[in-house]
Amino acid sequence: MSTMRLDPTTREWVIIAANRSRRPHDFVVRNEKRVASSSEGPCPFCAGNENMTPPEVFSYRDHDTHNWRVRSFPNRFPALTTDGNTQRTQEEGLLVSLDGFGIHEVIVETPAHDRMPGQMSIEEVRDVLLAFQERFRALTKEPWLRSIIIFKNHGRGAGTSLEHPHSQLVATAVAPRRLRMRQQVALDYYDATGRCVYSDLALLEADTGTRLIAGSDRFVAFHPFASSRPFETWIVPKAHQPSFSDASPDDVKDLAAILRTILVKLHRGLNNPDFNYILDLGLPGSGNSDHYLWHLRLVPRLTEIAGFEMGSGIYINTAVPEETAEFMRNVRVD
Amino acid sequence: MSTMRLDPTTREWVIIAANRSRRPHDFVVRNEKRVASSSEGPCPFCAGNENMTPPEVFSYRDHDTHNWRVRSFPNRFPALTTDGNTQRTQEEGLLVSLDGFGIHEVIVETPAHDRMPGQMSIEEVRDVLLAFQERFRALTKEPWLRSIIIFKNHGRGAGTSLEHPHSQLVATAVAPRRLRMRQQVALDYYDATGRCVYSDLALLEADTGTRLIAGSDRFVAFHPFASSRPFETWIVPKAHQPSFSDASPDDVKDLAAILRTILVKLHRGLNNPDFNYILDLGLPGSGNSDHYLWHLRLVPRLTEIAGFEMGSGIYINTAVPEETAEFMRNVRVD
Repeated sequence: MSTMRLDPTTREWVIIAANRSRRPHDFVVRNEKRVASSSEGPCPFCAGNENMTPPEVFSYRDHDTHNWRVRSFPNRFPALTTDGNTQRTQEEGLLVSLDGFGIHEVIVETPAHDRMPGQMSIEEVRDVLLAFQERFRALTKEPWLRSIIIFKNHGRGAGTSLEHPHSQLVATAVAPRRLRMRQQVALDYYDATGRCVYSDLALLEADTGTRLIAGSDRFVAFHPFASSRPFETWIVPKAHQPSFSDASPDDVKDLAAILRTILVKLHRGLNNPDFNYILDLGLPGSGNSDHYLWHLRLVPRLTEIAGFEMGSGIYINTAVPEETAEFMRNVRVD
Repeated sequence: MSTMRLDPTTREWVIIAANRSRRPHDFVVRNEKRVASSSEGPCPFCAGNENMTPPEVFSYRDHDTHNWRVRSFPNRFPALTTDGNTQRTQEEGLLVSLDGFGIHEVIVETPAHDRMPGQMSIEEVRDVLLAFQERFRALTKEPWLRSIIIFKNHGRGAGTSLEHPHSQLVATAVAPRRLRMRQQVALDYYDATGRCVYSDLALLEADTGTRLIAGSDRFVAFHPFASSRPFETWIVPKAHQPSFSDASPDDVKDLAAILRTILVKLHRGLNNPDFNYILDLGLPGSGNSDHYLWHLRLVPRLTEIAGFEMGSGIYINTAVPEETAEFMRNVRVD
């Protein structure tokens, strides 16, 4: 018999399908899908090809050599730009449209083309996270800003065609309804308890331990009770922080250590699977933020969603989070 | 510059990415991914192998030969069963679980293994839709029922491993939050206008014509203004109907003709792409249903979703619905 579990942060059910379930090692990626190196001309993200990208908006460089370690610039094929305005247009009665207003940036994580996320050092991961924070701080000053989504797509199955390690940032002038829903669930929880649901979840997972992957004084990484997909992993701060802007350099270094641990375990344990991660930063300026806590959600792309998920929003997860967590705890990092 | 469009039925934005956009013919499936016939032993859905499936719950049979045309039975690997109960369990503080209570059925659409959806006759499609209606009517009598999702997964990329044409039905004892959201949006619209947003949309699309694919006296098929994916197609009744149960035999026949037209156009125009469709039947028993209208949503699986969509719920659609609709209008059916 399967079990349904309620995600306390979205109030959506998932089905943990025990009778369809596969053991954790069944999810190890079998075929090496990734070609060694893309051969379609020079890579615009590689060191030496900086003139192939739009002008840089941010970088970390070594003081001695001026070589960059992380570079950020507008996406060459942006989903959103600041060309238009944020005025809504009423079309054909009940239909509403808006210029594709916003900012879409790329963060190149390393000058090395073939450096997989699971092979990076803590310092490299930290620089990427610090770059996220820099851009987040800069963009939250924009008066039109309503949300910032920072995300990474790793591998073709996760929606990227460029192999060179990079992340992306999209700043929108509209609040995504999905983030409004999360805010509402967190507010309802706060009203009923006086506490933040994400903080409570982090403390519970640190305490319970059965779904824990890694932990430190400042962060906890776990496979959530109501995981929607096999090996879904969350990293949540233990102490409440109003905003990602407020994370200290030590916080970011600590997060980098935990994120690197997760990336290495994924790479080694599941043979470099495709994955996405999202830095959920809440809705900037959505008032008192005692109820919401920024965090990171990582989803390996090991299974396809189908009509049931698309119609109901209820995911059928064929892995048991407690079992996948145990599997991941046992993958060595060194 | 791209455009954002607001889906009036979900209040979620989509980005129609003009600068990243591809022409409709760029989406034609190039490689024949599907093997001619699966060779992993006998197919449990084929005529003659009825003893390989759980006991039949419903079928249509020819009076003269007793050969079945459509057959329905419980899924051999059900996501939900009626083994447990609907009692919630409070686990570890804020975590809630529930037995995987519900019903999961398979509807085999034809005895012929290799008959692709785009090759079926109107009568064959009608029998499938009538079987959906029979099972829907039967299951809405269950006192524990809170939602019924009827869906079809066609092709590996759409989440199915079995090639023989089939659909599925999942009846749940909990209301999916996503359906509650749709109800709420429809109720808000109804309160403000006194009308059903789906009916208004059907009439608008029939009237505007730029996104129309096919229409009849009773139904309209179109690529929605705020399509989240390339070639997303909706079929909506023109006249308001409180429930799918109320659709008359003539309604169902008319829907079959339009759905078949869409399936043939997809098959010929895009070279048999993977797709999902969902029959959205609302939330049974959710009171006055003047505000909601059952309908069918079909989504070809031509692009991958990535971190931005997963984080924000905002889809980046690289095709323009008016252009894909024109392309599909020009695909011959005969």
